[in-house]
Amino acid sequence: MPTTPLLSPSPDTQGRDGDLIARLTAAIGPDPVLPAPADIGGRLIEDRGLFKGTALAILRPANTGEVAECVRLCHEAGVPIVPQGGNTGLVGGGVPDGGIILITQRLNRIRETDPLNATMTVEAGCVLSAIQAAADEADALFPLSLASEGSCQIGGNLSTNAGGTAVLRYGNTRDLVLGVEVVLPDGRILSDLNLLRKNNTGYDLRNLFIGAEGTLGIITAAVIKLFPKPVSRATTLVACEGPDTALALYGRMRASNADTLSTFEYIERLGLQMVIDHAAGCTDPMTTVYPAYCLIEMTSTGAQNALDLRMEAALEAAFEAGEISDAVIGASESQKDALWALRENLSEAQKPEGASIKHDVSVPVSRVAEFLHAARAACVAHMPNLRPCPFGHFGDGNIHYNLSRPTDMSDADFLAEYPAFNRIVHDIVHDMGGSISAEHGIGQVKRAELRRYKDPVALELMEQIKQAIDPAGLMNPGKVL
Amino acid sequence: MPTTPLLSPSPDTQGRDGDLIARLTAAIGPDPVLPAPADIGGRLIEDRGLFKGTALAILRPANTGEVAECVRLCHEAGVPIVPQGGNTGLVGGGVPDGGIILITQRLNRIRETDPLNATMTVEAGCVLSAIQAAADEADALFPLSLASEGSCQIGGNLSTNAGGTAVLRYGNTRDLVLGVEVVLPDGRILSDLNLLRKNNTGYDLRNLFIGAEGTLGIITAAVIKLFPKPVSRATTLVACEGPDTALALYGRMRASNADTLSTFEYIERLGLQMVIDHAAGCTDPMTTVYPAYCLIEMTSTGAQNALDLRMEAALEAAFEAGEISDAVIGASESQKDALWALRENLSEAQKPEGASIKHDVSVPVSRVAEFLHAARAACVAHMPNLRPCPFGHFGDGNIHYNLSRPTDMSDADFLAEYPAFNRIVHDIVHDMGGSISAEHGIGQVKRAELRRYKDPVALELMEQIKQAIDPAGLMNPGKVL
Repeated sequence: MPTTPLLSPSPDTQGRDGDLIARLTAAIGPDPVLPAPADIGGRLIEDRGLFKGTALAILRPANTGEVAECVRLCHEAGVPIVPQGGNTGLVGGGVPDGGIILITQRLNRIRETDPLNATMTVEAGCVLSAIQAAADEADALFPLSLASEGSCQIGGNLSTNAGGTAVLRYGNTRDLVLGVEVVLPDGRILSDLNLLRKNNTGYDLRNLFIGAEGTLGIITAAVIKLFPKPVSRATTLVACEGPDTALALYGRMRASNADTLSTFEYIERLGLQMVIDHAAGCTDPMTTVYPAYCLIEMTSTGAQNALDLRMEAALEAAFEAGEISDAVIGASESQKDALWALRENLSEAQKPEGASIKHDVSVPVSRVAEFLHAARAACVAHMPNLRPCPFGHFGDGNIHYNLSRPTDMSDADFLAEYPAFNRIVHDIVHDMGGSISAEHGIGQVKRAELRRYKDPVALELMEQIKQAIDPAGLMNPGKVL
Repeated sequence: MPTTPLLSPSPDTQGRDGDLIARLTAAIGPDPVLPAPADIGGRLIEDRGLFKGTALAILRPANTGEVAECVRLCHEAGVPIVPQGGNTGLVGGGVPDGGIILITQRLNRIRETDPLNATMTVEAGCVLSAIQAAADEADALFPLSLASEGSCQIGGNLSTNAGGTAVLRYGNTRDLVLGVEVVLPDGRILSDLNLLRKNNTGYDLRNLFIGAEGTLGIITAAVIKLFPKPVSRATTLVACEGPDTALALYGRMRASNADTLSTFEYIERLGLQMVIDHAAGCTDPMTTVYPAYCLIEMTSTGAQNALDLRMEAALEAAFEAGEISDAVIGASESQKDALWALRENLSEAQKPEGASIKHDVSVPVSRVAEFLHAARAACVAHMPNLRPCPFGHFGDGNIHYNLSRPTDMSDADFLAEYPAFNRIVHDIVHDMGGSISAEHGIGQVKRAELRRYKDPVALELMEQIKQAIDPAGLMNPGKVL
């Protein structure tokens, strides 16, 4: 889906664009201003190649002041800006449509770590894994964890309110942030680097920018929360009959162990089989084949054996209640890692099986089983040989409802059904009070779907806010709204 | 501090106001529209009598549709509205300045309880204690807990982002809410009763209304989070040398027991002495007098004896490190309640000691001890016989920095120093990156202080948002901004 440039496909260095480039170069130096054709880092495309854009130039400011100056100059010239972090998004939110790409890569300082206040002040360009490592260094945990953590940047995590595998225990990115620093669309700097757990002095501005996908301003720094580092973990893969028993098991685990339960992931047999078939070193940890599996982890700042006893007691009760058919308990750290590998390799293991149609949806946790049944029935009715491969963050109600193509169909024929399957799955989700984008955001991919499903007053309010904060419409145009 | 009515001090039943009253009566019936002079329920005054306002009428709509119709009619007539819940606020936020008072009392249904999704959908007028009881009935916990819980309403809790004694473990009200339903200033209804743990479909509208103190619209319902009910608790009062050892102890407790630590409250000797002297049934649980005390509680969904062992191990280590001088462990439920009573009676026990000057402030947790030292030094320098009585939510960095008058000074002479002490304490707080209103909000009381201390760009942004959502300025005018 190519996009049309808003300005000119290449910089008109003699005209208005050239003037802007000259002023930007004067402001932040020549090296940090790259004419767009010089881009070799994939900054014009989205990770999976679904979108390709154009841009006048790529800016690499070094600090908040430079970001503000760049934004002010673009605002003055009426030229749009697309902010980019690690460019790992999955919905085309960072792909430009003409204008300027501003990358946060050089804003990569950890400004402050305060272990006793349990906070870290980080700049937008810090790579997530570097933040995790710095927290670990300070004997603390920054729990945000997702597949792209080696290259995604915290600014992007904030702008998209990233989810990941630790949401059940620690919440989404939004829940991990106390304060933000933001360059507004006209170049003003909002300093709201709040370090406080309690602060009721006016409107909650922070959450307006978190999850706004760069359409209201550029987050340049944030105060993030640290947590005590767990010293013990109990990891189990259980086999069960399917969604209904998995849901009963989830309810049991949460009721009895909410203060330690940190993971409750769901995989059906087809997914596990793909991992066993395609992921190096992954084998079936059980001797019998079962319909579905849950990866359950409890973590604690208390002793390992106390945690093990709690896990065993919960599993024993679940066996007696008929909720689980089999279980493998990770007895060593390497065994625990091996159980995690079955879940972590799932996205990759689907690729050799041919094209997939993907959905990132959520429903109330109490309706996850109902959703899984309804979605399977409707999708298979539409295409009998379809291979549904749902998996994901069951305990958050967030299922990656992926569909692998029938073994006897071409990728192209299958992908032609993308809109039809979107409609089927999203209609079911919507009817259940669910979300068509649980964690990936809207970007370009889901703009039309947002218009279709979102409460109209909510959409109007979003537009009123966009108009109030970015009246010229220069911040990441064509995304979300 | 009396307020001037915006319209007329009594309804002009022949003119424009009378037309509005007639239309409101036609919309929701005659009984729910009370002319303001008929108010005998204290709806024109703030709890402590610091503010007294006037109003045209008091409206008691029965449901969201009626609220919307009332707001629409007032919007059409250009008449301002003050929403009121239980009217228990401490900053004059619910006191009218002419216009209409809209009370949420009759919106008191619990619309839905979903134990497996761990949510409850409640209307704004539900009294907090009724919600706590309904959660308990569903074998769950709604953790929000504060002194006025028997009369405050959840709509007010949301509008003020209430804090209380469970923030350390469960967060502020904001953290306990998944979705809201709001009547906007022009009468439109925003339906964002999100039941989902993960939902990245556009701007975070919910948090804009939470903590806005009714200036952006009227919250009519909310989806709140439920938590597993703890089945065990370990409660201890420890004695320590003062703020520094208390802070070291807090760091230790959090590092080793973060998944169970739910309370870390601080009281100095003067405060404890007042409770012992004035609160019926409260006695000193220790035989020696110490400078300061911490009330510590751990709660768990696991076994009592495992929790007791964790508490004992932590206390033993703290003794060895010299962080605590003495400790009383609650051995029975009634002993635990008795320890809590020492903290809960503190606000009341200050009254017989004469006038207090109060501050609701927060600083980064790592700087609480530094703040307590600096504030004492500066306040006592201003008034040598002053009796500082700081206490509060130490683990949140939130101290109620209360000052009791010298024993040899009149209340009036002492209260004349209110502005001077505000300036001293708030300047120190501000210099430490703290907040002049940790949990009570801004209302009328702290409007000028907000202008003095808040980042100017943040204030501008708040005004842009207010202008975008309530351009006529009819929602709770004269509050916050």
